[in-house]
Amino acid sequence: MITSRDNQQLKQIHKLQRKKERDATGLFTAEGEDLVTAAEQFGWTPEIHLRAGEDVEAELLDRVSSLGSGARVIGVYRQRWSEPVGDVCVYLHGVSDPGNVGTIVRAAHALCDGPVVIGDGCADPFGPKAVRASMGSLFARPPARAALSDLPGVKLGLDSGADATLVDAAREMGPPVVLCVGGERDGLPDDVVAALDAIVRIPQRLDGPDSLNVAMAATIGLYELGNRMAHHA
Amino acid sequence: MITSRDNQQLKQIHKLQRKKERDATGLFTAEGEDLVTAAEQFGWTPEIHLRAGEDVEAELLDRVSSLGSGARVIGVYRQRWSEPVGDVCVYLHGVSDPGNVGTIVRAAHALCDGPVVIGDGCADPFGPKAVRASMGSLFARPPARAALSDLPGVKLGLDSGADATLVDAAREMGPPVVLCVGGERDGLPDDVVAALDAIVRIPQRLDGPDSLNVAMAATIGLYELGNRMAHHA
Repeated sequence: MITSRDNQQLKQIHKLQRKKERDATGLFTAEGEDLVTAAEQFGWTPEIHLRAGEDVEAELLDRVSSLGSGARVIGVYRQRWSEPVGDVCVYLHGVSDPGNVGTIVRAAHALCDGPVVIGDGCADPFGPKAVRASMGSLFARPPARAALSDLPGVKLGLDSGADATLVDAAREMGPPVVLCVGGERDGLPDDVVAALDAIVRIPQRLDGPDSLNVAMAATIGLYELGNRMAHHA
Repeated sequence: MITSRDNQQLKQIHKLQRKKERDATGLFTAEGEDLVTAAEQFGWTPEIHLRAGEDVEAELLDRVSSLGSGARVIGVYRQRWSEPVGDVCVYLHGVSDPGNVGTIVRAAHALCDGPVVIGDGCADPFGPKAVRASMGSLFARPPARAALSDLPGVKLGLDSGADATLVDAAREMGPPVVLCVGGERDGLPDDVVAALDAIVRIPQRLDGPDSLNVAMAATIGLYELGNRMAHHA
């Protein structure tokens, strides 16, 4: 039983809240029973595994948790990255909110066969908020890293100003398709747009908000493509 | 310039973080430039409006903010509720996460003409996290309150165990339609299911997660219905 806050494992867990430490070590944390159980279910062996009241005093574990409410269990795992292949995958550019990145990891797990490809300017998918938002899907479907130009297949960008609609474009496409989504404020930059095969919009009400949340837009895109691609399979 | 933390307006703002106070007063807060600007844009006049460094010392405003990072501006507004009418609206039951409620308010604003109807067991749409997640759509499209049985039109429930798919059911429906969505863990309870006209699923991968995030499921449902209903209009 760990009873000192000077314990090396606790210090390591705390440091892994920082991206710099995650990059340097290749490790990341999962906090809470649901995530640690998901990791186990998908065959990930923890490097560190601490349970409050069993391996460590509860209040010491709370101190190194990134959750305001503390955590009853924390696991430390080695990062894994997928190959960017699949009938449908999603490429993110400038999606800087970790909750959105994690939510899209979960949506891709539910709706398509390929991974989430993390492009420039995105939040770290192995950060605590992203891992939590993925609700365990990160362990089932680790993210990928690649330049857009290195991905095979049709590149389809989402942009609210496009003429064509998602559903019309999706009807005419066969796999593999890469759905490209940019950050909410800035959208896709010119060099990404130049590499696209088509740009489509999700039909929205004229009296609606300026933009959909990026995770919502990606989810709708994956839903539509997943449904259409199923007809090709 | 407010320079004392004993100021009544500051105390009121702080108390409005609690649902009990919001229910008792009929007021709520919006924190940050984007939300306060959205309120103004949609014609809401604040009861209290405090700007850091102009109306109040910045550190005093930070103290009453619900944001970890503090707020440069906070507005207090009187709650408004919409009538539950529209070609497509969404009814929530047991959606207890305020971020999900707010995200669905935004999705409805983008994708359909009716409001989000708040049923039993839902997070308060006027709580700080829900307001923030709505990104201002709460001001454009205030939520509604009603029992499911009092809503007009076809009641369509989302359930991952249903036989029919969303797209097939949506094809055969005309407005008004009420999309009914339950909480992630428990789904729709028996008495709500008994009141439905149809139950449909969003097609998902067999190797995917147990369920979609409730905000994602609602968004996909509204996207599909909004697209289909447009053909009826």
